[in-house]
Amino acid sequence: MSHPSAPLQCLEWQLSLVHYDGPGCCRTFGEWRPATVPGAVQLDMSRGTEYENPFYGENWQGYRWMETEHFLYRATFADPRTEAGQVCRFVCGGIDYRFEITLNGNLLLSQEGMFKPVDLVLNEYLVGENTLEVLIFPSPTGGFTEPDRRQASRSVKPAVSYSWDWHPRLVPAGIWEEAGLVVVPAGHLARADWQVKLNESLDTGRLTCTVAGTALAGCRLAVEVEDSMGEVVLEDERFLDSDQTTWKGSVPRPALWWPHDHGEQPLYTTTVRLLSADGRELDSQSRRIGFRRVELLMNEGAWAEPSGTPKGRSPVPITLTVNGRRIFAKGTNWVNPEIFPGRITRDTYVRLLELARDAHFNLLRVWGGGIVNKESFHELCDEMGVMVWQEFPLACNEYPDDDDYLAVLESEARAILARLRPHPSTVIWCGGNELFNKWSGMTDQAKPLRLLNSLCYEMDQDTPFLMTSPVFGMAHGHYVLREDWGDSELFSWMQKAKNTAYTEYGVSSPADVDILESIIPKDELWPPEPGTSWESHHAFGAWNGDTWLRKTMIEHYFGPSVDLPTLVERGQYLQGVGLRFIYEEARRQKPYCSMALNWCFNEPWPTAANSSIVSYPCRPKPAYAQVRDACRPVALAARFDKLIWQTGDCFEFDLHLLNDRYEVVEAGTVVIEISQGDAVVPVLTWEHLALEANTNLAGPRCRVVLPAWETGRFTLTLRHRENPNCSAEYTLILRRSAQHEEGLRALNQ
Amino acid sequence: MSHPSAPLQCLEWQLSLVHYDGPGCCRTFGEWRPATVPGAVQLDMSRGTEYENPFYGENWQGYRWMETEHFLYRATFADPRTEAGQVCRFVCGGIDYRFEITLNGNLLLSQEGMFKPVDLVLNEYLVGENTLEVLIFPSPTGGFTEPDRRQASRSVKPAVSYSWDWHPRLVPAGIWEEAGLVVVPAGHLARADWQVKLNESLDTGRLTCTVAGTALAGCRLAVEVEDSMGEVVLEDERFLDSDQTTWKGSVPRPALWWPHDHGEQPLYTTTVRLLSADGRELDSQSRRIGFRRVELLMNEGAWAEPSGTPKGRSPVPITLTVNGRRIFAKGTNWVNPEIFPGRITRDTYVRLLELARDAHFNLLRVWGGGIVNKESFHELCDEMGVMVWQEFPLACNEYPDDDDYLAVLESEARAILARLRPHPSTVIWCGGNELFNKWSGMTDQAKPLRLLNSLCYEMDQDTPFLMTSPVFGMAHGHYVLREDWGDSELFSWMQKAKNTAYTEYGVSSPADVDILESIIPKDELWPPEPGTSWESHHAFGAWNGDTWLRKTMIEHYFGPSVDLPTLVERGQYLQGVGLRFIYEEARRQKPYCSMALNWCFNEPWPTAANSSIVSYPCRPKPAYAQVRDACRPVALAARFDKLIWQTGDCFEFDLHLLNDRYEVVEAGTVVIEISQGDAVVPVLTWEHLALEANTNLAGPRCRVVLPAWETGRFTLTLRHRENPNCSAEYTLILRRSAQHEEGLRALNQ
Repeated sequence: MSHPSAPLQCLEWQLSLVHYDGPGCCRTFGEWRPATVPGAVQLDMSRGTEYENPFYGENWQGYRWMETEHFLYRATFADPRTEAGQVCRFVCGGIDYRFEITLNGNLLLSQEGMFKPVDLVLNEYLVGENTLEVLIFPSPTGGFTEPDRRQASRSVKPAVSYSWDWHPRLVPAGIWEEAGLVVVPAGHLARADWQVKLNESLDTGRLTCTVAGTALAGCRLAVEVEDSMGEVVLEDERFLDSDQTTWKGSVPRPALWWPHDHGEQPLYTTTVRLLSADGRELDSQSRRIGFRRVELLMNEGAWAEPSGTPKGRSPVPITLTVNGRRIFAKGTNWVNPEIFPGRITRDTYVRLLELARDAHFNLLRVWGGGIVNKESFHELCDEMGVMVWQEFPLACNEYPDDDDYLAVLESEARAILARLRPHPSTVIWCGGNELFNKWSGMTDQAKPLRLLNSLCYEMDQDTPFLMTSPVFGMAHGHYVLREDWGDSELFSWMQKAKNTAYTEYGVSSPADVDILESIIPKDELWPPEPGTSWESHHAFGAWNGDTWLRKTMIEHYFGPSVDLPTLVERGQYLQGVGLRFIYEEARRQKPYCSMALNWCFNEPWPTAANSSIVSYPCRPKPAYAQVRDACRPVALAARFDKLIWQTGDCFEFDLHLLNDRYEVVEAGTVVIEISQGDAVVPVLTWEHLALEANTNLAGPRCRVVLPAWETGRFTLTLRHRENPNCSAEYTLILRRSAQHEEGLRALNQ
Repeated sequence: MSHPSAPLQCLEWQLSLVHYDGPGCCRTFGEWRPATVPGAVQLDMSRGTEYENPFYGENWQGYRWMETEHFLYRATFADPRTEAGQVCRFVCGGIDYRFEITLNGNLLLSQEGMFKPVDLVLNEYLVGENTLEVLIFPSPTGGFTEPDRRQASRSVKPAVSYSWDWHPRLVPAGIWEEAGLVVVPAGHLARADWQVKLNESLDTGRLTCTVAGTALAGCRLAVEVEDSMGEVVLEDERFLDSDQTTWKGSVPRPALWWPHDHGEQPLYTTTVRLLSADGRELDSQSRRIGFRRVELLMNEGAWAEPSGTPKGRSPVPITLTVNGRRIFAKGTNWVNPEIFPGRITRDTYVRLLELARDAHFNLLRVWGGGIVNKESFHELCDEMGVMVWQEFPLACNEYPDDDDYLAVLESEARAILARLRPHPSTVIWCGGNELFNKWSGMTDQAKPLRLLNSLCYEMDQDTPFLMTSPVFGMAHGHYVLREDWGDSELFSWMQKAKNTAYTEYGVSSPADVDILESIIPKDELWPPEPGTSWESHHAFGAWNGDTWLRKTMIEHYFGPSVDLPTLVERGQYLQGVGLRFIYEEARRQKPYCSMALNWCFNEPWPTAANSSIVSYPCRPKPAYAQVRDACRPVALAARFDKLIWQTGDCFEFDLHLLNDRYEVVEAGTVVIEISQGDAVVPVLTWEHLALEANTNLAGPRCRVVLPAWETGRFTLTLRHRENPNCSAEYTLILRRSAQHEEGLRALNQ
């Protein structure tokens, strides 16, 4: 989004329930109440009710009635124009979802779609005192009666709000982005859409800016590009002879933008100024951009597949290259950080994105079940060097080959593309989530996906496009540490898996005790039971098996828990050890594998149990630290085959030194020990050779007999003498063997 | 292509070699000679030389020098206009490959691309006596020096001419489609591009016609659609106010077009007439169209895949449905029927397409290594009910993300789409051949394929689009009956294969003896040896192993051959038995498998050995009859595990009754016997139940001990008593067992 020079004049909004009688025509019922913009009709309507806090207990159910209602926003204002010839515009970044806008009773706009911004010239109907109204239609249901995500399958509304296994049924509506009036001269800019390309040899940045506005003919357009030091690297000026023009220019030898783990994030500031014939500045817009070249290349070894005959195709390439460098993508799936996107502020993003960057994540998959984020998200990703895989709002549904739907999808997608394409952090476009699996039922022939491929090609052809995730070679799952219906654990199935990218996998855990106390009524808190607020907050019956609390599984590893803190600690421990293993195993499979993204990073409300590694709004779970360690650019890692070991067992594991840096790792020494409390047993000292850039080193298979320690846990320490930052520590489960128990019994008798 | 009402006035062409000095500027050297149009510069230049017959011996090498030369076509003509205001246009369906056109020394057109038709208004430069010149540039090489198909990888020139394992290096050039002058009134139609859609409920045909011309404003446009009985089903007329207009209309309850094995081929004739204000007919164009709805649906059982975790995507759907009916697609890969496409006439197509239809083929994959066929091919496919999978001219190369290449590809693809989309027989668009395999190196991210997806979506979005073949789930290969490097045969690997579609597979055979005598000098004819004309005609060193003669393999089955007729008979027998098995096995795998297309149908010159089942120009090989029998809509089939059996063996095979018809097959009786000469042994009589429409029936596994017959071949007969048309007969190889031989020896002693 470009930032216009004229300030946004905010309005005072009120909200009421209405009956809808036809385009531009409705009757209020109920009272007018103050409305917060940006926000959601639900937040305004619930203010002061007993369900005002949607997070507590079953309060979320209090919001259900609003889905089927019409709401009217109203703002009154005096004509803000102070000079002759001025133009007054109403601008808004997004209104959720279907709406009509009237000024003094005149219908100005009827729109379906929350991502296409609104920009209306009000002049024709402006009087001294004005009433601006925004009518919000009921949430779309696509004609489906079952209250599930299928109701989102005929619209470009994020499907997650219709209920998911970690999101309550709560469908937001209303003005969710900044809105207000802008007063500009007759000649002014309405849009300045940028496109940035870096050529193959990385030495020329090609800029295109499509400018549209009003009364531009006869004016001059001045374009300026400053580098991150404030130095002007490009200046250009031209006469305009119509209300639309496309300017092109080049920046020679631009400083390259890199993901944070591979280099700097130099950003350039572009400014377009509209000058009158006599040189006065009438209007201007400016935004930041960056130069990087992104490709998806075939994963190493994947061209050799398939072998044998009859022969199919080779896998889809998923190795991200930035500026020609193959990068192992470590990251996570980003979901809505709030149930009500209107509540998201820049600060919401800052705290979460800092956590993501600090976990060494270089890629966020912005999952297609949620919203396309606000502009500040993308600005921060640019600044922090965090790459974005951006999905369009399609997920786990069969979106139709229907002309009406396709028209809305096109209009929304064009707005999304125009806004996000100049961000250097936007590295992958994707049609949406799991569309090629049976629960969605879409295929490569689906018109919505062919349309999105066409639009991305037309508007941003240098950025890769995937129709969905997973595509051939990639994989999603598993979402549990251990299957209830068998005895296999992720430690074994991840070692057998051979995929080019793991773009979703998860292990769940309960939230911290104080979070649980804040959302679950005291009398339901212990023991956790289905049918209580635990279930509404996804601890029971959320997905397969006893998700997401996984009480049965926790008992498999530890037996019954005596109290809530014990249960929480154990569940959180299992999440950490499981997720760490998957990230490390994906890295060990480099270069055939080139991407690891867990499901999921954050959550839109406080869940009782979930696969997230950051609780709402922004508190890391213990697994966060394990994941962060697994994602260090240079890290020691141990591969073991199971989690529970017995005293007297020969504990075995493979050692690896993982290096995703484009720097050599010097030769060094790793001291390996196991311990329980103060008892320490040395295992091995490994003198490893130097590692090439971006290359892993397989170390020895280590073996040690587990001493007659206490039942409980034991620690495996991999200590790097010269480079302690890459040391690692694992906690595994220890049980006394039957023989050991017998010996102890004999001793005690 | 629409047919304009004004007659084409042919020109007398001459041809000469030239030096090129710059746009519109060249100097002849060598003599002027008569040129045949349509044709090829090679055919004109070779006339009267010792290499005039390109098929014989090594003559094809005589043409190599022409690739790097410039050629000039020249025609002189008197101004053909007889009335004031008339317009004289030069039209040509296609000129191969890069060319410039001048009239009286004025450069009118410079074009790269052989598929975009030429249509030039000559008036501005016309004088009493005129010289029209067409300069042909050297064949493109893309800057590659090795004389192989890579030289075609920077152009939209069919790659096959640059040499393939069944096509000599002979790169045609010149005017390959009809060319001539058209004299029309000032107001006339230049183009009438049709688009035909049939709605989902199959009861409304929607027509769109984009008309462009000159001096149309003030005229009227009359549109008429007649059904196949000559009855007018739609009439419309409108005033024109500009030189371009888009007309839309609907045909209610149109008669549906079907592939020949599923129904009729009703074709409608559309006519657009340009009328002057006073009602005179100025110009008209007419063409035939048909109404059908085509989709690619998920193959039955394929949504359940993959199972397990981590989980990838489900296969790409490849079950063709026509008018809502799932159709098992049986067919073949169609290649250029001539080295020089300028020599192809309607009659060339008629004979080959009749053979294809008579083999029960309902789908031709027009392989991307060759040309896009002339209009008569598509008209005949419409008439005969043969569906066309049309590839763009990309094959086995890495076509680049290069702006110049993409611009030519777009202009060619738009012309191809506009011409072919109204044909009901055009059922699949495809980017090209084997582009997602390592020998090509392209991926889903390749801009040429993303562009083609976009163009097909824009211009013909109701027809499925595949980026290439094979995509995920489909397969190509194998191309031999038995691998030299192991002892496995196609009978075993085809039974193990599980693919949704087999879109290429082949077994080669030598040509008939008289064809061999016509292309191989007498002294090289026997025995066939590498380094002779046998090799140039692809019998040796063509592809892997001793392709395509497969002498070693023939000896594996039969031992040495005493003469050419014996060798040919044996090779041709093996092709028939192998191909028949693959077609039948693919059909047995229905509904998971839904398509079977052998490599390949025809050939562009007389090969000594090839996978084709029809020798150049149009003579079926013995395998043709085997394939035809395998593709009968209702057919008995036997599945055996190997080809060579021994006396005393228990000969085993599974019986199937295959039904691709949407009709029930009544219960019946199958009598199964084996025989050698007059000796007949009954095996089983199978009383089978009735079969549902489009459903196969698995019969018994049959077993019979092979009698002490002669070494040689034996016959398996499956005779259907009530429906002899679905009976089947197989010939397999019989050898005397060691025991049998010993017994005979003992007897003879």
